[in-house]
Amino acid sequence: MDRLNFSKGDGLLPAIVQDHVTNEILMMAYINEEAWQKTIETGKAHFYSRSRNKLWLKGESSNHYQIVKDILVDCDEDTVIYRVEQLGGAACHKGYRSCFYRTVRDWNFIIKEKPVFDPAEVYKK
Amino acid sequence: MDRLNFSKGDGLLPAIVQDHVTNEILMMAYINEEAWQKTIETGKAHFYSRSRNKLWLKGESSNHYQIVKDILVDCDEDTVIYRVEQLGGAACHKGYRSCFYRTVRDWNFIIKEKPVFDPAEVYKK
Repeated sequence: MDRLNFSKGDGLLPAIVQDHVTNEILMMAYINEEAWQKTIETGKAHFYSRSRNKLWLKGESSNHYQIVKDILVDCDEDTVIYRVEQLGGAACHKGYRSCFYRTVRDWNFIIKEKPVFDPAEVYKK
Repeated sequence: MDRLNFSKGDGLLPAIVQDHVTNEILMMAYINEEAWQKTIETGKAHFYSRSRNKLWLKGESSNHYQIVKDILVDCDEDTVIYRVEQLGGAACHKGYRSCFYRTVRDWNFIIKEKPVFDPAEVYKK
């Protein structure tokens, strides 16, 4: 059993989420050992929420789960890529398909796409 | 002028490097404020090397520079994507096109591609 190296980031390492068909990068979040194991065991993307200090199943509030089709590991075993099918069509909590919905022009951040959903609708309790 | 948020990671944040044509993810490294400014000013990908504790122009040893075609910023302003043309055909110091040259199967990391170059040749002094 091969292991990731969680030591450099105080038990956390970055997980990049990529659409498994288009290769679009949807988001980046952090995982700890528990999130890594849950992801492999369940086939759904899990992370560690730095703001809430807890395990985070992506989609637990929105139902926009990420079904993991493949996982890639880098040369240093300290970054991974989850290649996923994004349910609900959007990964960003602001309603955009990708969290990377802005491009840099002359030091300014310019929105380059339209939201897929209204966050107020999806995250209402 | 819009700003990135370097505060969460002790002055560093992740920069994902993606091929601007194929969307393949080539590598992930960290940037500080200086690397960010140098990248925008020069159009070549710069990072901060955590192992050497210094500014790092990707390609300074190998001549395999990354020409930045576009930069994307995430919803929290704490992760960026450099969309690049990879000179020399490979981003990984181990000679693979992408640092993510392994896939996970049954908890094991399996090499899925062949190296593009021999690191001993490219990094010889």
